[in-house]
Amino acid sequence: MRGGGAVRSGEALAVSQASRVSMQEVADRAGVALSSVSRVVSGHRDVSPVMRERVLRVVADLGYEPDILARSLRRGQTMTVGFVVGNIANPLLAEIALGAETRLREAGYAMLLANSMDDPALDSAHIRLFRQRRVDGLLLSLTDDRDPDLAAELARANVPAVLVDRDAARYPGVAAVLYDHASGGERATEALIELGHTHLALINGPPASRPARERASALRRVLRRHPEAAGLVRSGAFSAQHGESTMASLLAQDNEAVPTAVIAGSNQILVGVLRALRRANVIIPKDLSVVTCDDQPLSELFDPPLATISRQPHELGEVSAELLLEQLNGGPARSVVLPTSFRPTESCAPPRQPARRRRGGGG
Amino acid sequence: MRGGGAVRSGEALAVSQASRVSMQEVADRAGVALSSVSRVVSGHRDVSPVMRERVLRVVADLGYEPDILARSLRRGQTMTVGFVVGNIANPLLAEIALGAETRLREAGYAMLLANSMDDPALDSAHIRLFRQRRVDGLLLSLTDDRDPDLAAELARANVPAVLVDRDAARYPGVAAVLYDHASGGERATEALIELGHTHLALINGPPASRPARERASALRRVLRRHPEAAGLVRSGAFSAQHGESTMASLLAQDNEAVPTAVIAGSNQILVGVLRALRRANVIIPKDLSVVTCDDQPLSELFDPPLATISRQPHELGEVSAELLLEQLNGGPARSVVLPTSFRPTESCAPPRQPARRRRGGGG
Repeated sequence: MRGGGAVRSGEALAVSQASRVSMQEVADRAGVALSSVSRVVSGHRDVSPVMRERVLRVVADLGYEPDILARSLRRGQTMTVGFVVGNIANPLLAEIALGAETRLREAGYAMLLANSMDDPALDSAHIRLFRQRRVDGLLLSLTDDRDPDLAAELARANVPAVLVDRDAARYPGVAAVLYDHASGGERATEALIELGHTHLALINGPPASRPARERASALRRVLRRHPEAAGLVRSGAFSAQHGESTMASLLAQDNEAVPTAVIAGSNQILVGVLRALRRANVIIPKDLSVVTCDDQPLSELFDPPLATISRQPHELGEVSAELLLEQLNGGPARSVVLPTSFRPTESCAPPRQPARRRRGGGG
Repeated sequence: MRGGGAVRSGEALAVSQASRVSMQEVADRAGVALSSVSRVVSGHRDVSPVMRERVLRVVADLGYEPDILARSLRRGQTMTVGFVVGNIANPLLAEIALGAETRLREAGYAMLLANSMDDPALDSAHIRLFRQRRVDGLLLSLTDDRDPDLAAELARANVPAVLVDRDAARYPGVAAVLYDHASGGERATEALIELGHTHLALINGPPASRPARERASALRRVLRRHPEAAGLVRSGAFSAQHGESTMASLLAQDNEAVPTAVIAGSNQILVGVLRALRRANVIIPKDLSVVTCDDQPLSELFDPPLATISRQPHELGEVSAELLLEQLNGGPARSVVLPTSFRPTESCAPPRQPARRRRGGGG
């Protein structure tokens, strides 16, 4: 299957370009618009089978071959975008990647993927590697948006970049798509307090993550407005282990210190929280009200279904790609804020034994 | 952030190569093995912070810059691999992608990702695009491994390729990593029959998918050995809609025709099956025994947890990358079979009212 190496040298490139058929010739012969040819050859989804068949027949007849690598060298563009992601096996990040890849491909770009496995040093290493591969742009779902090496690495990369729900404060000139985590988080906290909860807990992700920081701020802001309620934030990894050990330690406290409502700060944390609750025979919502962050395929099917602070990750991926494309087409780096929402369900109910009222604010 | 375009032309490439520092010089100056430098600059995970720090300091001192694109043109390699995937937002496929990307990166390759959204025409379009980008190899989790256009497209690509749990029969010289779906599927079916079930149903994926075909064969094989039991296979999309409508139609039959045990043929199908069961107030396992395929984060936390025919998708990704690397290093295209297993749980129990015994085999 190999053996193509020899015809891939620079000379062969130049020769093959001489006899090249243009996309316009394909469009003329097929009697369709140039944009239609472009959509077919870029694997765009919204192409009718008839159009695809018609264009591909002319492509085959004329032997049309867009040589992307050769075009790259002429234009100084590789038509690739690098996506640095914590862990593509996180369903939330996979959905973002799907949205981004689909939009980028429609615009003629291919997406390179690199997983950082929650290691900030790998974030920097990936940006360096992508620079060496001369990507035209970067999408960054960073592990730690406060990592001091990153700003220098990004400056060296010197290509348009978009932070994917990460804080852009340290990276001048870099675009960002940010979730308004406050809106959904505050609504969830208010709903729990309205039900009568005065002991709240947020089992949260690490402070290195913007979503975790924003969720903690939202909880504290609401608690300041409600001196009758108190809440605590336990930070840790986005992992089932953190969720499980933290939930277990909260349950092991004196009865009146045990929270009556808990917010799981990610889908991985939720798995651990539910494991700890099952082992301790805690019934939702009779013994404990539970809210989670981000939709998961099976969470609607729990009995009761879980109340959720939700966002639209596919849209996040699409908008991130869009902001990058704007810059690649000469536009400015700009930032966009997307909403989050709260979907209450029967996993939240009034506390069984209203906890003793506390004086003073939470935090 | 832009502006780097001008220094990216062919001439600038040649100039920058003249003063290029080699990886060996970095290794010598740092007093470490060449392989250690390679691991640090490729973003390998298993590098100690001390080693990373030491190598990166010398990299900075010497101004070492591996120019991957220039090296690509000299060697006739782009050091990229294209991964064609149905839908990266499917957690199973995301886990495969993670395993593959990690292994490829360790070997110096970057992974391009393209989603086919269960459209066989996009599979072909992606292979064509990847060929035009001169990828060195392909990983293919195809939508339809019997699509007639694919063989021609793959032959034109003329690079090593590995089919990811797809049938290689039509693609001579192409490697494959295959799951032995029969082992887990037969064990699950046997377990249900041992519990006394004689009316089984497999709500399956499409015949275009090898896993779906293999699971149907496994069920039929076991039923031939057990004339006391009958089973039916309902094929459809890997979607919640298919699972929901098919489960609902099975439940709507005359009482004695309703299956007493059902196997959901994918994680998406499972979501639909569970929706239909909830709407009909069917209790697992009292009214119906349920088996699913592939682990999902929350399925262990159902009450009862769901019996599962499982496989190791991360390993599948790693082994697929490994087989591709073997070919890229001049080795032959070979195929590997990985096992599946069955994990029984309390979601399977004897049928409430043993169905009337039937004569004759299933199918």
